[in-house]
Amino acid sequence: MSRVVRKPAEFRRACEDARAAQRRVGLVPTMGALHRGHFSLIDEAKARADFIAVTIFVNPLQFAPEEDLEQYPRTFESDLDGCRERGVDLVFAPAPNTMYPTGFQTSVSVKELAKPLEGGFRPSHFDGVTTVVTKLFNLAGRCTALFGRKDYQQWKILTRMALDLDMPIELVGCPIIREADGLALSSRNRYLSASERQRALGVVSGLRDAFDAWERGERDPDALRSLTEKSVRPAFDHLDYVAAVDPETLTASPPSPDRLLIAVAAQLGSTRLIDNVVLGEDPRP
Amino acid sequence: MSRVVRKPAEFRRACEDARAAQRRVGLVPTMGALHRGHFSLIDEAKARADFIAVTIFVNPLQFAPEEDLEQYPRTFESDLDGCRERGVDLVFAPAPNTMYPTGFQTSVSVKELAKPLEGGFRPSHFDGVTTVVTKLFNLAGRCTALFGRKDYQQWKILTRMALDLDMPIELVGCPIIREADGLALSSRNRYLSASERQRALGVVSGLRDAFDAWERGERDPDALRSLTEKSVRPAFDHLDYVAAVDPETLTASPPSPDRLLIAVAAQLGSTRLIDNVVLGEDPRP
Repeated sequence: MSRVVRKPAEFRRACEDARAAQRRVGLVPTMGALHRGHFSLIDEAKARADFIAVTIFVNPLQFAPEEDLEQYPRTFESDLDGCRERGVDLVFAPAPNTMYPTGFQTSVSVKELAKPLEGGFRPSHFDGVTTVVTKLFNLAGRCTALFGRKDYQQWKILTRMALDLDMPIELVGCPIIREADGLALSSRNRYLSASERQRALGVVSGLRDAFDAWERGERDPDALRSLTEKSVRPAFDHLDYVAAVDPETLTASPPSPDRLLIAVAAQLGSTRLIDNVVLGEDPRP
Repeated sequence: MSRVVRKPAEFRRACEDARAAQRRVGLVPTMGALHRGHFSLIDEAKARADFIAVTIFVNPLQFAPEEDLEQYPRTFESDLDGCRERGVDLVFAPAPNTMYPTGFQTSVSVKELAKPLEGGFRPSHFDGVTTVVTKLFNLAGRCTALFGRKDYQQWKILTRMALDLDMPIELVGCPIIREADGLALSSRNRYLSASERQRALGVVSGLRDAFDAWERGERDPDALRSLTEKSVRPAFDHLDYVAAVDPETLTASPPSPDRLLIAVAAQLGSTRLIDNVVLGEDPRP
């Protein structure tokens, strides 16, 4: 049975008690609407720790006013079922006003890494992420925390944050989980109509084309980027970006990498999807 | 004997070991140049904890380019003697490049509380303070941390930060320590020439005049502010501010407080001094 707690102090206490009982804490921060991607994080947590805490919190700080905070899927009961089936020990599901009471005014920012890619389209998004994750880390205490690499830039930013601020946290970035046809799992996929769902595969083809070209020896970032864009642009209603950048700096340097991140953000109707592959490291999407 | 450590990992480990041995950690963050004000923090730490860690780090992040980072007094050997005499267990004195290695890019900000008073004159100062103190807190882990109320705004900001970010830290603000003639102790006092040292008492007279008027029943913030300014302005070369504000919000509201913060920042030659009193709470300066 997963225990559900709502108050930050209860969450902190439960993690402290677990550590006092010599259990290693594994933390999986989520916004709920759990899918197999999240469950893979829980499985990895169980391989690395023995007290598994899942947090479910649709964090208002990381949504801009025009974004989908209100309609973001909330499926708490089935999330809980999923946690229970997988032997999660603790679910922390706070209300927004306990996380951000009146007078709250502190933020955590990672600078350079937050500027490119998503930073150009969601300017305050990552400050919201780093701030809430700092709170979750401070409540959980020493632990291993697991994040999905579908949110690749988020993972890099959080890793940098934990290093820069000397947080006693081990961060693990886990592989993207995909549907049989290659679409990366996302809580936002449920917004898609049947035809949009089909067109969404344009991003998979694009990433696969870049992957295959890399395998054949292509190393020119511009060429690889263009290959991806050629599939994404016609399939989607709007292309935010297709980028070919260094997987560590998220910028165009170094010029001749032995790994290359291809990252895509594009919209189908009002739904915005992101996906990526690290060429030279990840398997074929 | 106070043990001296230079590396963040050693500092973290020493605090962890102390807690594992059931010792409560008391943390006194300083920039060195220790005086009786700092020693009063150490004494208070010893009353509240049983493993006392003093950090000595002149934090470059909290100095603006035109400020006194280079000439800030560094008196490490006598600081160490002072710590040893008082039974400090651990001194953490890192080099700047171990605190801020290449690629460092994360900052912690408290918003509203950092804007008034010092915020108007040292715009990036408090971000530097909150960032370094976050690092020290994350390294020290669960502890009681002690700060002087001479840096009253800093203390309020750090208290807000710890609350907002759910840090497992108890913050204690300790009273200002003064010379026999009333001058608040400060590492920067040693910059003063003999005549500047004498003129610096203008701020003490100003705070005392406000204190005495408050005791006589004066409650008008403007009148109390003006009383202080009347003594400070002629004594100093430049007045940055004299403010009469709510001790919690650091703004003019609420209009009829039962406590009132009088805060002063003014310059003598190239030396900038600050001082304050909370009317309705503090003793006569």
